[in-house]
Amino acid sequence: MARRRKLYEGKAKIMYEGPEPGTIIQYFKDDATAFNNQKQGVITGKGVLNNRISEYLMTKLTEIGVPNHFIRRVNMREQLVHEVEILPVKLVVRNVAAGSLAKRFGLEEGTQLPRSIIEYYYKSDELNDPMISEEHITCFGWAATQDLDDMVTLSLRVNDFLVGLFLGVGLRLIDFKLEFGRWYNEHDEVQIVLADEISPDNCRLWDVATNEKMDKDRFRRDLGGVKEAYQEVARRLGVLPEAGPMDLKGPKAVQ
Amino acid sequence: MARRRKLYEGKAKIMYEGPEPGTIIQYFKDDATAFNNQKQGVITGKGVLNNRISEYLMTKLTEIGVPNHFIRRVNMREQLVHEVEILPVKLVVRNVAAGSLAKRFGLEEGTQLPRSIIEYYYKSDELNDPMISEEHITCFGWAATQDLDDMVTLSLRVNDFLVGLFLGVGLRLIDFKLEFGRWYNEHDEVQIVLADEISPDNCRLWDVATNEKMDKDRFRRDLGGVKEAYQEVARRLGVLPEAGPMDLKGPKAVQ
Ligand SMILES: Nc1ncnc2c1ncn2[C@@H]1O[C@H](COP(=O)(O)OP(=O)(O)O)[C@@H](O)[C@H]1O
Ligand SMILES: Nc1ncnc2c1ncn2[C@@H]1O[C@H](COP(=O)(O)OP(=O)(O)O)[C@@H](O)[C@H]1O
Ligand SMILES: [Mg+2]
Ligand SMILES: [Mg+2]
Repeated sequence: MARRRKLYEGKAKIMYEGPEPGTIIQYFKDDATAFNNQKQGVITGKGVLNNRISEYLMTKLTEIGVPNHFIRRVNMREQLVHEVEILPVKLVVRNVAAGSLAKRFGLEEGTQLPRSIIEYYYKSDELNDPMISEEHITCFGWAATQDLDDMVTLSLRVNDFLVGLFLGVGLRLIDFKLEFGRWYNEHDEVQIVLADEISPDNCRLWDVATNEKMDKDRFRRDLGGVKEAYQEVARRLGVLPEAGPMDLKGPKAVQ
Repeated sequence: MARRRKLYEGKAKIMYEGPEPGTIIQYFKDDATAFNNQKQGVITGKGVLNNRISEYLMTKLTEIGVPNHFIRRVNMREQLVHEVEILPVKLVVRNVAAGSLAKRFGLEEGTQLPRSIIEYYYKSDELNDPMISEEHITCFGWAATQDLDDMVTLSLRVNDFLVGLFLGVGLRLIDFKLEFGRWYNEHDEVQIVLADEISPDNCRLWDVATNEKMDKDRFRRDLGGVKEAYQEVARRLGVLPEAGPMDLKGPKAVQ
């Protein structure tokens, strides 16, 4: 396991070379960052929980026909995915005003938007992920028009599905971020597929009854109970691992 | 209340003239029919439960931007809706083979379909709701091409949302039937909106863990526990009325 080639270490995950060509292993860390790395911390067990939550959501999205990179979970902290060429455009889907949108337009957090909207951000740590428009995307060639269309269509489907699913478990999906990649499928055709992860790290989830935040905002805003919130999301989705503290710390901690 | 003009009595509901022009009252009966009226029965409390379930689902669909006829629930058995011109085309969305599709193609019930499909049926009790294609619909003028496009788009959104929502409460959405109507909206434009009801009368819902049927198939196939299944669906969606037996029998029974 230690012999694997590390391809990339990001803020929340490490990518290792996978067992077969065209696959990679996503290792979920407990590291948490916010405000583009200015705030750093550790949420013990987060990696284990996000691995499960993302596995569950990607699997269910596959079942409804939303293509994505997920192949299978390998262990508590790792999952096997198809390697894709990540497009440098992050899509944010928003149902309710919160975070930067609330700030930008002087809206109260929690205001229902007249309709769901999609925002684009250029994926660049150095530039602090600036907001962009379709004009920039096509002008600079970050995505072709057809690829962008596919990303939008898929994001809206993901939104409809996740709004329903989370509502069923008593959570309001306020907003979330998606990343897509170009993948050469079995027929050697290029296809736009959903990649990265879907987890409380990149969704805002509020309890339907109490409006309590059940996501990374607890970390960003020092609200406490961060791990417990992630656990509760996993529990409601039915994927909370039956875990002693050892398991939540994961394989690395067993040394 | 007894003075209201009855517009239509169907198999599961009665439509009364509403308080304002362009509105009608949908009264939910306990009557159950199957195989185009060949089998008849009563499921005590069904009307109360379907009124609540359909209210809940239509409200949530409005929230995600799927236009529909629902205005508000009036009492245990009645809801106020916009009067629409019902199009004589029923849309059936199927995720898993069951019922007539399983029979028609010799598939085992429960077989996941390669992708969700939409079927069209011509709404006609006399003709026994025959299956039709787009060719028939446009040829006989049952719906314009653009209206049919809208119905398909909306049905797929409804499916994504409901698959998620029901999954969140431990139910698999196998298939369901929708009816649409043409409605003159506030701007006096014709708009295609979802109408009728969404309930265990016209959805197939199977428990995720046990595969138990939680819908009208319990009545069709004499499986027993019909009322209990409808109650359980309402309970999981969080809309089970806190009801004594009197409430479940509804206003009519109080005479
Ligand atoms: N299937 C995939 N193939 C290749 N790269 C991926 C795939 N899924 C996600 N990635 C990329 O791997 C990295 C995941 O690690 P993460 O810690 O989230 O990084 P970052 O700090 O860049 O957000 C991201 O840069 C993401 O775009
Ligand atoms: N908003 C509406 N406006 C007008 N008619 C409607 C509306 N919603 C549903 N309907 C129609 O009212 C009837 C509802 O009663 P139901 O008992 O389901 O009848 P049926 O036996 O024809 O299925 C259906 O024929 C349905 O098409
Ligand atoms: Mg990331
Ligand atoms: Mg009917």
